[in-house]
Amino acid sequence: MAEKTLDDLFLDTLKDVYYAERQILKALPKMAGAAQSEALRAGFLEHRDQTEGHVERLQQIFEMLDKPARGKTCEAILGIIEEGKEIMSEFKSAPALDAGLIAAGQAVEHYEIARYGTLKTWADQLGHKDAAKLLAATLNEEVETDRKLTQLAEGEANKKAA
Amino acid sequence: MAEKTLDDLFLDTLKDVYYAERQILKALPKMAGAAQSEALRAGFLEHRDQTEGHVERLQQIFEMLDKPARGKTCEAILGIIEEGKEIMSEFKSAPALDAGLIAAGQAVEHYEIARYGTLKTWADQLGHKDAAKLLAATLNEEVETDRKLTQLAEGEANKKAA
Repeated sequence: MAEKTLDDLFLDTLKDVYYAERQILKALPKMAGAAQSEALRAGFLEHRDQTEGHVERLQQIFEMLDKPARGKTCEAILGIIEEGKEIMSEFKSAPALDAGLIAAGQAVEHYEIARYGTLKTWADQLGHKDAAKLLAATLNEEVETDRKLTQLAEGEANKKAA
Repeated sequence: MAEKTLDDLFLDTLKDVYYAERQILKALPKMAGAAQSEALRAGFLEHRDQTEGHVERLQQIFEMLDKPARGKTCEAILGIIEEGKEIMSEFKSAPALDAGLIAAGQAVEHYEIARYGTLKTWADQLGHKDAAKLLAATLNEEVETDRKLTQLAEGEANKKAA
């Protein structure tokens, strides 16, 4: 066990985020279905399509490493998604529903921003240049999605909720 | 239920992050105890002290709202901390331990950045000016902690792990 290095940590964390992305892929259509505003619904669905690309990029990285694409249960994303489900049930039909859904979406994005930021830095350190590029591309899309959710919150959802 | 507004969502999310901060307060000394480098150990302990201040600020906000300071189980932070525990056990004594601990710490910080960012915006929307200031102060400290963890990773921990 004492020899476990950054290669092991990198692979473990890839598996963690691979599992997380596939959970997010299942959660986003439910969040879109619950959203009251058309803009938020469209935003969640657009990010669902983007997430398919994120899963494919991870599969490419597993292939580059000559490892099977396999997920590892990620308790963090399960907890974060669970909180989103609570919002959907506790704020069903309420004026504050969309504000709550946006907050839930931003918790998801920030988990991914943390993980992809870490993975990108580790890929650089390990000399996996092509993997680092793919991870940076996904990281940028997660940051952009978080920014769009902030705009939706500040533009309409929070006012309606108040 | 249809009348639930941003006031309810704000209070619910305050309870969520209040619970989360107290879990983090318990987790940080364990992460400090596991850290191999003195700089990382000191960083976790410094943030533990800061976290006590975050708990106190939340208590002040509950008081401003004339509500009891009460937590609400936050599945997200439990999952995130659980992943940190896995790192501590799976990478015990390994060269990559500190890199893994930093990654776990950054997942915690990003959860808090998401939540405090949301709460600060909602406090502004609801006209809770003093609460917004306290939330902004904590948000800035979480962002700064995340930045320091990145520095520790890039400065030493990732090289040692590789």
